[in-house]
Amino acid sequence: MALPIPCDWLEVPQGHPFGLQTLPYGSFSSLHHPARRRVGVRIGDRVLDLTGAAERLLPGRAEDFRDGNLDRFLAAGDAAWAQVRAGLTTWLSQDQFRSALEELLTPADGVTMHLPFTVADYVDFYASEQHATNVGKIFRPAAAEPLAPNWRHLPVGYHGRAGTIVVSGTPVRRPCGQARPAGSDWPVFGPSSRLDFEVEVGFVVGTESVMGERVPAARFAEHVFGACLVNDWSARDIQGWESMPLGPFLGKSFATTISPWVVPLAALSHARVMSPSLRTDLAPYLADSGDWGLDIDLEVAINGHVVARPPYRTQYWNPAQMLAHLTVNGASLRVGDLFASGTVSGQERDQFGSLIELTWGGESPVDTGDGSGRTWLEDGDEVVITATASGPQGSRVGFGDARGQVLPAWPPEAGLP
Amino acid sequence: MALPIPCDWLEVPQGHPFGLQTLPYGSFSSLHHPARRRVGVRIGDRVLDLTGAAERLLPGRAEDFRDGNLDRFLAAGDAAWAQVRAGLTTWLSQDQFRSALEELLTPADGVTMHLPFTVADYVDFYASEQHATNVGKIFRPAAAEPLAPNWRHLPVGYHGRAGTIVVSGTPVRRPCGQARPAGSDWPVFGPSSRLDFEVEVGFVVGTESVMGERVPAARFAEHVFGACLVNDWSARDIQGWESMPLGPFLGKSFATTISPWVVPLAALSHARVMSPSLRTDLAPYLADSGDWGLDIDLEVAINGHVVARPPYRTQYWNPAQMLAHLTVNGASLRVGDLFASGTVSGQERDQFGSLIELTWGGESPVDTGDGSGRTWLEDGDEVVITATASGPQGSRVGFGDARGQVLPAWPPEAGLP
Repeated sequence: MALPIPCDWLEVPQGHPFGLQTLPYGSFSSLHHPARRRVGVRIGDRVLDLTGAAERLLPGRAEDFRDGNLDRFLAAGDAAWAQVRAGLTTWLSQDQFRSALEELLTPADGVTMHLPFTVADYVDFYASEQHATNVGKIFRPAAAEPLAPNWRHLPVGYHGRAGTIVVSGTPVRRPCGQARPAGSDWPVFGPSSRLDFEVEVGFVVGTESVMGERVPAARFAEHVFGACLVNDWSARDIQGWESMPLGPFLGKSFATTISPWVVPLAALSHARVMSPSLRTDLAPYLADSGDWGLDIDLEVAINGHVVARPPYRTQYWNPAQMLAHLTVNGASLRVGDLFASGTVSGQERDQFGSLIELTWGGESPVDTGDGSGRTWLEDGDEVVITATASGPQGSRVGFGDARGQVLPAWPPEAGLP
Repeated sequence: MALPIPCDWLEVPQGHPFGLQTLPYGSFSSLHHPARRRVGVRIGDRVLDLTGAAERLLPGRAEDFRDGNLDRFLAAGDAAWAQVRAGLTTWLSQDQFRSALEELLTPADGVTMHLPFTVADYVDFYASEQHATNVGKIFRPAAAEPLAPNWRHLPVGYHGRAGTIVVSGTPVRRPCGQARPAGSDWPVFGPSSRLDFEVEVGFVVGTESVMGERVPAARFAEHVFGACLVNDWSARDIQGWESMPLGPFLGKSFATTISPWVVPLAALSHARVMSPSLRTDLAPYLADSGDWGLDIDLEVAINGHVVARPPYRTQYWNPAQMLAHLTVNGASLRVGDLFASGTVSGQERDQFGSLIELTWGGESPVDTGDGSGRTWLEDGDEVVITATASGPQGSRVGFGDARGQVLPAWPPEAGLP
């Protein structure tokens, strides 16, 4: 099937990451309606008001978009997702819809984006072999095997805090907490001095499941609506002191940034690749996952300077395996569950998706292009994650960005007790 | 202030755990209105329809109860909580309200209880010194110190799955998952063979907080509405294999049972005791917590036979400390956040709050009164946690129960792949 071409009047340049191959969904408000959120679809450099468009052109589904976020649309299921995407493709590629749509388009740089859906449960995995290996080597340099014994048998994961997931652009306050200085056996309290980012890809659940029943990996595309970018901000000093024996908690829970656009799985069908884990001997529920690895090129910049380009295609565990694992014990899915990949790191040093890896535990600063360098994030630093995936006919599928600036610790004026 | 006495016509026996000293809140439906949930208040052996009572007697707050769960009431804040409790105490102790209330009372054994509030984020702590010590000794018998170095400095905790929190009475399916048999270096997949309970107390957040700002322990009673009982069902074999290095995940996420009645903090003011941690050298944010330890007597039974009586009063970390710790990094609170104590264990063997402790890692079965004994839970077993707290004038404050029966693994008929 030839890729439809956006109507000329839409002025979408050829090769634009938000052409008809992408059509991601988000929640926005504009100067015209600052208090009223709408569901939007990104096309080129503009945002289509889908809440308005559905009322005119697809009234049977208009209810899905009236709340101004994706919650009802996610719950509507995969037939509705396909129906709306087909509608959008038709409307935006055939001139006859111009009069209906033209006044529903707003420049993307003139809208405010909001959290696209209500996050139910948030799970973060640890699915990059290179990342897990790097972290193992940094923390246990003497160990013969940097990976834990379970790592190649299952996608290790844990629950994070759903209530502190924020949309791209929300400032992130440097967290305070306890940490134990090197060489000391007593902790100190204060602002984190080892603030880090983690470049991740997140997956958004639409269709819920029944508690007590497993969701097979083969049903991935029935349950998962799409993908977004995730910055799992991490305070390494807090995390290091608190994590024994129940895992990360306050070192992660202060903030997690997601990109405002959720890219539907239908836009990623040309990006599918085989995961390395599928070449190994796996439990049947993980072996039967299909080739849901994804060829996504990620990029992370500090203050505008790119510090790493992690390749998602190298991830050991794919998202269908993560979904199957997440539910293999009978845990149910809810609309709006988000599960993320964990830090994405490729084999080369400039493909590592976190500062702890890029600076090898803080030993050597990463170049930031202005001579200053960074071992850890400083107040005022802005971190931006962007990505594109392989699309049809050589096109690229855009993800937008996950952006956040570091604010000083609270209370900023008073210092700390 | 003398404790008001319930009106004679209410027929609440003296010493009843649901006298006027308690007045817990829940969500119920009845045969009269099976599809319509109401907020209920337990009084003696009956449930008062508070949704109806507020419409008649406190119309300014009626909106808080119209959804049939506690969500809006939790969000209404501590002044509203005090106002409603004062109203209930008056209505139920003065005969003039009989005609307004009588038809709003239903026998407690004739109603169906529902999840009392929408759970936002769920955090589980590890706050019992005896429990953490027991677990340390069971898993690391050779270690000189069973507690991790951080344990006495901060309340160790982690996030659990909010979407699989169920109300008392909901059956719990035995989870499947990967586990590594003793002596093997390769995992197997199948139903958990080490299914356990954990006796805990949970705390329900009403008033939200601002992201980036700390909630001091001294503000505990402004933010936390009340307490309930929690059974944090645990599959020890799954948990043991998966937890390195990010902590428990599928070994816990299949189900967590809570009691249907949320006991307001106002009912626990006579139960307050000093926590052991307050006698030690703590970071200021944990030292300033007040005496929010609680004198609660817990009890857990398997198939009607009491197997342990854990004393909550011995908990090292109190819930005000947990709240302060949870937010010290700026993580915000939402309406409906639930945080639990972790397993409550006293110093004596018959005060341990989990089978892994009662059977010392499965070494010696616990007596179940019928000669069969249990090392781990079997299909069909029913676990019931109950509790009362110290109330005014020698009274006891009841909590109701957290009850669940174990169903066979899924799919029960087909065996397992």
